[in-house]
Amino acid sequence: MNVPTPNSALTPHSSSLPACPAVLADRFNTLRYDQATGEVVLLDRRQYPFQTLYHRYDTVEGVAVAIEEMVVQGGPPLAYAAGLGLVLAANEAKSEERGAWSENLELAAQRLLNTRPTADDLHHIIPKALEVGLSAGQEQCAQAILDYVNSEIQRGNEVAQRCGRYAAELLQDGDRILTHCIAGAALCWMLWQAKLDGKQIHVYASETRPYFQGARLTAQSCVEMGIECTLISDGMSAHLMSLGRLDKFICAADRMTLDGHITNKVGTLQHAIAAHYFGLPFYVLGYDGPDPNTPTAAGIPIEERNPDELFHATGREGKVRTAVEGIRAYYPAFDITPPHLITAIVTDKGIFPPTLLHTYFSS
Amino acid sequence: MNVPTPNSALTPHSSSLPACPAVLADRFNTLRYDQATGEVVLLDRRQYPFQTLYHRYDTVEGVAVAIEEMVVQGGPPLAYAAGLGLVLAANEAKSEERGAWSENLELAAQRLLNTRPTADDLHHIIPKALEVGLSAGQEQCAQAILDYVNSEIQRGNEVAQRCGRYAAELLQDGDRILTHCIAGAALCWMLWQAKLDGKQIHVYASETRPYFQGARLTAQSCVEMGIECTLISDGMSAHLMSLGRLDKFICAADRMTLDGHITNKVGTLQHAIAAHYFGLPFYVLGYDGPDPNTPTAAGIPIEERNPDELFHATGREGKVRTAVEGIRAYYPAFDITPPHLITAIVTDKGIFPPTLLHTYFSS
Repeated sequence: MNVPTPNSALTPHSSSLPACPAVLADRFNTLRYDQATGEVVLLDRRQYPFQTLYHRYDTVEGVAVAIEEMVVQGGPPLAYAAGLGLVLAANEAKSEERGAWSENLELAAQRLLNTRPTADDLHHIIPKALEVGLSAGQEQCAQAILDYVNSEIQRGNEVAQRCGRYAAELLQDGDRILTHCIAGAALCWMLWQAKLDGKQIHVYASETRPYFQGARLTAQSCVEMGIECTLISDGMSAHLMSLGRLDKFICAADRMTLDGHITNKVGTLQHAIAAHYFGLPFYVLGYDGPDPNTPTAAGIPIEERNPDELFHATGREGKVRTAVEGIRAYYPAFDITPPHLITAIVTDKGIFPPTLLHTYFSS
Repeated sequence: MNVPTPNSALTPHSSSLPACPAVLADRFNTLRYDQATGEVVLLDRRQYPFQTLYHRYDTVEGVAVAIEEMVVQGGPPLAYAAGLGLVLAANEAKSEERGAWSENLELAAQRLLNTRPTADDLHHIIPKALEVGLSAGQEQCAQAILDYVNSEIQRGNEVAQRCGRYAAELLQDGDRILTHCIAGAALCWMLWQAKLDGKQIHVYASETRPYFQGARLTAQSCVEMGIECTLISDGMSAHLMSLGRLDKFICAADRMTLDGHITNKVGTLQHAIAAHYFGLPFYVLGYDGPDPNTPTAAGIPIEERNPDELFHATGREGKVRTAVEGIRAYYPAFDITPPHLITAIVTDKGIFPPTLLHTYFSS
């Protein structure tokens, strides 16, 4: 397998690619600020696509709880939602006492930062949005934050598109690709580009307990794009590899370190170890690169979610309890995969061997 | 880690051990032939312990469908249920034409054999039960088969108890044990013996999609025995190992080959590869040894179940659809783990290195 060097001779992609029909390929489809009503509008990803519910929020607390309760999921989307949440705080700040507005904006930023500890985008966008807002002053604050967050969403869409197109270069006609959870807009663009290039790709979606993001979001994105998709349970990947029924493992990352570790939805490490054992390449959709503030995996907080979520399964018709009473559960939301299990990390700037991921910033 | 050699100096266990309170420790708790009504009675393991439902069957076809639909699960239990199903056929055979009775019994045996292809117990008990029945003649046939099957259930209970007690010798106070699916009566006896020996064991039950046997049967057995149990999803074991939060992986096998491969519930291979990667021992509860008719893994049929089962989750309150429409699913019920990933196989005759499993028969 040839891993192109960063900024290699890949032809610059035209931006006039036929629009990707997957809803999740464009973040503006799933989250936005409604200027008319002053509300943040979020697609409920816990129910999508069984129900297409857009919730409206007019308080910071509402947005923060929505992020905690996974109305919006995935590193960049939840960061954008938080950014839009800060616009709500800035709106309120307009009518506050002259001395209190900046303090309240800082409190709101802190509340939003505390929602999810693991993914790095949130921890970049909120401090920057706060800075932008404070610089703009009390009157212009909300508009300045909104402009910044919208520009970040736009930039993120472009990053995802470039990352997906680089990743498509790694796919071959007939590839059977394991993926875990939902690798977001870049996954959609990767599959869409491959399809436009005439490559037939078969996605094996790991269902991703307890929230079934694979069975819902990844599977639905495939349906929307007309890509063949087969659902498996989270424990089946090694068996499929042993049968020679998978060619590659590809997923995203909620945070990447400068030394090439990736943090992603729990279950990723297990698939990566199995891929390594069976000699399959593992590619990471790395969007806009590593977190410059996370040199090694040692500093990454792994969010532990409410164990109660593991006692239930939620589906189209509601929620059922799948575990007995009288036991405990452990629900770490993410795991960390070391660089030696990763073949290459695909970013908007090209494709990097994991141990050279720190060169992203000089590429 | 010292693996005792087969039939090593382990003290013979007294049979007067305090009764294990786990329902699944004694197969007669979950399946039996009701002499009074001439029916086979099976605990519905798909609902247990949310509901304790005993279904009654008076036809071979009823029992066969119950096995196919997983009313009864697990290598030995489903084999016993099939054996009791043959008693029903023998009952009917009593009133049949002199020439037809043996042919109909053979057809019934074939129907029962065809229910599940992977586990080996079924393929031992049914041919033997048929032979016993045919030898006994038309009048005595049913009673002869019933006596044989009941003696097999009794023998199986004793095998499980001995196997569990040998396995308990491998446990240390404070051990945190990963298990997958339900490792049956031997798991119960292992944990019970360890508890009686004053060892505190913490079970981490992998929930085991799509049927949640881990979240229901293993977890419930732990509750009944007062053993600490923490539920995890099938994708979390490698992460827990990476944190140093697991000490051993222990599960059962639906079929073992003479050269030391094991076939078990899909997901086992993935846990085994992760355990190997992190240097954790993997012990198999091997009950009464390998299948003498399966020299290597090449000959093992892996049952593919209805993919529809993967589109849903069934819990206490019923069934919900957890996957979108328009995709396919793949549901192999078992996977195969090679001997080099297995530390030792524990049987009723002692503990074997996997590559010496063929010596079980001369031990």
